[in-house]
Amino acid sequence: MSAGQANPTVAEQVLLYDTTLRDGMQGEGMSLSVEEKVRVAHALDGLGIPLIEAGFPSSNPKEEALFDVLANETFEHAEIAAFGMTRRKGAAAPYDQAMMALADCFAPVCTLVGKTWSLHLEKVTRVDPEENLRMIGESVAFLRASGKRVIYDAEHFFDAYADDPGYALSCLHAAADAGAENVTLCDTNGATLPRRVGEATALVVAELGEAVQVGIHTHDDAGCGVANSLAAVEQGARLVQGTMNGYGERCGNANLVTLLANLQLKLGFDCVPPGLLSRLTETAHLVDELCNVSPDANPPYVGANAFAHKGGMHVAGVNRDSRTFEHLDPAEVGADRRLLVSELSGRGTIRARAEDTGVDLDDEAAGRIVERVKGLEHRGYHLEAADGTLDLLIRRETGHYEPLFRLEAWRVIVEKRQDGKVETEATIKIWVDGERYVRTAEGNGPVNALDSALRDAIGETYPHLRDIELVNFKVRILDERKGTGAATRVLLDASDGHDTWGSIGVSENIIEASWEALVDSLEAGMLPARIERVPGAGARPG
Amino acid sequence: MSAGQANPTVAEQVLLYDTTLRDGMQGEGMSLSVEEKVRVAHALDGLGIPLIEAGFPSSNPKEEALFDVLANETFEHAEIAAFGMTRRKGAAAPYDQAMMALADCFAPVCTLVGKTWSLHLEKVTRVDPEENLRMIGESVAFLRASGKRVIYDAEHFFDAYADDPGYALSCLHAAADAGAENVTLCDTNGATLPRRVGEATALVVAELGEAVQVGIHTHDDAGCGVANSLAAVEQGARLVQGTMNGYGERCGNANLVTLLANLQLKLGFDCVPPGLLSRLTETAHLVDELCNVSPDANPPYVGANAFAHKGGMHVAGVNRDSRTFEHLDPAEVGADRRLLVSELSGRGTIRARAEDTGVDLDDEAAGRIVERVKGLEHRGYHLEAADGTLDLLIRRETGHYEPLFRLEAWRVIVEKRQDGKVETEATIKIWVDGERYVRTAEGNGPVNALDSALRDAIGETYPHLRDIELVNFKVRILDERKGTGAATRVLLDASDGHDTWGSIGVSENIIEASWEALVDSLEAGMLPARIERVPGAGARPG
Repeated sequence: MSAGQANPTVAEQVLLYDTTLRDGMQGEGMSLSVEEKVRVAHALDGLGIPLIEAGFPSSNPKEEALFDVLANETFEHAEIAAFGMTRRKGAAAPYDQAMMALADCFAPVCTLVGKTWSLHLEKVTRVDPEENLRMIGESVAFLRASGKRVIYDAEHFFDAYADDPGYALSCLHAAADAGAENVTLCDTNGATLPRRVGEATALVVAELGEAVQVGIHTHDDAGCGVANSLAAVEQGARLVQGTMNGYGERCGNANLVTLLANLQLKLGFDCVPPGLLSRLTETAHLVDELCNVSPDANPPYVGANAFAHKGGMHVAGVNRDSRTFEHLDPAEVGADRRLLVSELSGRGTIRARAEDTGVDLDDEAAGRIVERVKGLEHRGYHLEAADGTLDLLIRRETGHYEPLFRLEAWRVIVEKRQDGKVETEATIKIWVDGERYVRTAEGNGPVNALDSALRDAIGETYPHLRDIELVNFKVRILDERKGTGAATRVLLDASDGHDTWGSIGVSENIIEASWEALVDSLEAGMLPARIERVPGAGARPG
Repeated sequence: MSAGQANPTVAEQVLLYDTTLRDGMQGEGMSLSVEEKVRVAHALDGLGIPLIEAGFPSSNPKEEALFDVLANETFEHAEIAAFGMTRRKGAAAPYDQAMMALADCFAPVCTLVGKTWSLHLEKVTRVDPEENLRMIGESVAFLRASGKRVIYDAEHFFDAYADDPGYALSCLHAAADAGAENVTLCDTNGATLPRRVGEATALVVAELGEAVQVGIHTHDDAGCGVANSLAAVEQGARLVQGTMNGYGERCGNANLVTLLANLQLKLGFDCVPPGLLSRLTETAHLVDELCNVSPDANPPYVGANAFAHKGGMHVAGVNRDSRTFEHLDPAEVGADRRLLVSELSGRGTIRARAEDTGVDLDDEAAGRIVERVKGLEHRGYHLEAADGTLDLLIRRETGHYEPLFRLEAWRVIVEKRQDGKVETEATIKIWVDGERYVRTAEGNGPVNALDSALRDAIGETYPHLRDIELVNFKVRILDERKGTGAATRVLLDASDGHDTWGSIGVSENIIEASWEALVDSLEAGMLPARIERVPGAGARPG
């Protein structure tokens, strides 16, 4: 607990509801594959988030595939919620395809969004207010009858409440009376200020708090997304919706990362198992990576600058008593204090990682690796997302490493011909066990061609390579202001069906960066610790 | 005034106090020349900001030079404040160099920061609490006697108040009794939450509000910088300190851009002359540019995404009544509404975009383009981030398009040699105005080499191409489960110094996808609507 802010008498639960996979995807440029969404869900589960909204179970084939996959995944802490709208106007049960898909999907929780604001009924949906109440009540009742727990998202609640409090409340009543276990007040247009959010929430809690749990869903259009959620919680809301890193439409949703730390560490609520909170930073960054978003340096708690100290006086003060210049021990959220003289930071992490992969590190070697990591990160490497490359680095520094091959040269030719066809060819020249191999392969892209040529050359010597698949390939430009002349960071994820690991390469030349990551991904896949886990895979020779 | 949030009975003034040039410079990587600081000051003045803290008048030669220059500048709305610390412990008048520099400088306002928290007196400065009170009182009195108006910044006020409210208040009294016109409560460690800020401020206003104005200075370490300032204003604080775009140490200071819009448009306070508020977006971006910071797309009010709409229903709603999906008319803060084109968009969005770029579309053509967009998005294109490509698409569908050149073929060779060096060479063969050009160029990567060769070939015919820079390059793998065999989406942003636009290419081959985006980025930069905006750029021939 931190500097005088926690209230030890409060230990109530606030349910965190993550909507990264649905509302977060409304953010500009956001788009995740089914596999990435599943990885995000597991990351959230690992952090202890209890409710994960996965999307619309039937809005398109990709969402359908997602629900099929999620149905067979196991989560330790999280339940999956499916999202949909209230039934169509004038429809009779079973209403419509979307409603049936909600009723039929595996998710135990369904979240229904419905209209609350007469302006929207008039101008957008053109639905009679009484019919809207029926739409809410009947949709909730239908899903309850299908065995679902139901959360009702009252769209534009605060605008509706300002215009016509009676009608806004009657929408909530319609949901509650039909069996919703929660009514969530949504600030859909996003710029209501905290005082008004608090006042309206207090009134809703007074009126419906006995019957249902009240939730809050805010956006950041006035820069108050987090504060608005806190204001609602202070007035009795006990479910908080938000997205990882605040992704979302326009200015984004309330940042669930910040909210989790504020609620649990500053206000003393019970949100996630306390031991998991130290995964906050790592999880926030992992989700950024999966979404191909460059982590921002400034966000509360998890940004690279959040616990950075400049100047000797700060450093001296922090050394005497960290409360002088820090509102929190960064370790509580898995962040590092960044001091100009931070010699100790990181050794523990490195030693833990080495142990995981079967390498014993003494303190001196760990220190050397920390320095090496810092040097690489300064050049644009990002080892947090590249555990395979880190494993190789640890082994190189401790003499536990032997390369699979020695490179002589490679060449890639990509040609767009007169007939419009694009052809790609890669040639590599390498040495394996004293023998020279020259191989040429075609591919549908330069990295694919290099990968094929390399596997062709070393596959006989290392048969386990056949099991290793490259499952993800990400490219980020490091100083994007330099346009196509900037340095490029390539992240590759590889898998042998049992284990997945990341590798990284950095170069001005995207092909060279890819090559570096490609070699690391294969080398890391052949490490003894990994091979031993794969039944039937031969250990590497030597 | 916007949707039901303004309170017409309140028309009190809240003094905005900008500390971009002092506290904002504590942000990582921030550094401005004297000339740039003067430009920032004029930008703030143009927005109507009444108080600008310029820095320490004597902390180094650069700051000294700044005060010399500022002394001779004329500002219409702004007064300059000089910043410094209370006198050294045990010193007698005139105390120290810094105090004398404050007394001697031209600025009519001096802001003094002093200790308020006993933890800091014990652990950091090792000053006796009684001596600290004398340091505050005597420093304020000295500057008052030198003819200055004085603001007292109570460092760590909220932590101090939580530990020992009596002592914290006595520090404020010492400043007020000595003649300070304002005491500003600083949340220096930055993570106090709004309720506590409001409570403490209410108490200070009750105790000292008759004698002095109360101010607020917050940071964003709990994501509540803006909300904390609002909470203080609601309890009677009438001076708000912040930085443009929220620059500052760690997670940044309270964002004064957001605060200005919230205070004036949502709460009805008088902060800047109403006619100047429409300069908000332009000023925020100008200051970003002066500070060499890429403007973030998500901040409230001024971010490129702040008023962006996705999806047909939003677009239809906004067209019927903008309040349905907007909390504010973007024009009030000088921002533009953006309708993002994606597979979810309808004809209205496409027609609006076409109109913006000077193309008249009938309904049938708009429908055709919507279908075309859907088809492309199905193949992995993502047009909301590629307005340049969309503009070209609209023109191709309406016969308004003429290509800059006809491609015959290109070839890229990337080679990693035995000495470890990587070399890249691109050759292109194209036709421009019936003439064939064959050009070869080297580059630090394949796309860079292609870009150079292409510009070399067509640069003479289209001199405006020299003004077009590629400013951002993003790569995303679409079905990453296929690893390096997956389709690749390349997004390029280009700029001619006046305008920025995006283009996109999709292919299994990353080089082909890059080529496609590269060609579109140059073609889109040469569209008549864009060229006309650039002084001196020749229109494209034909």
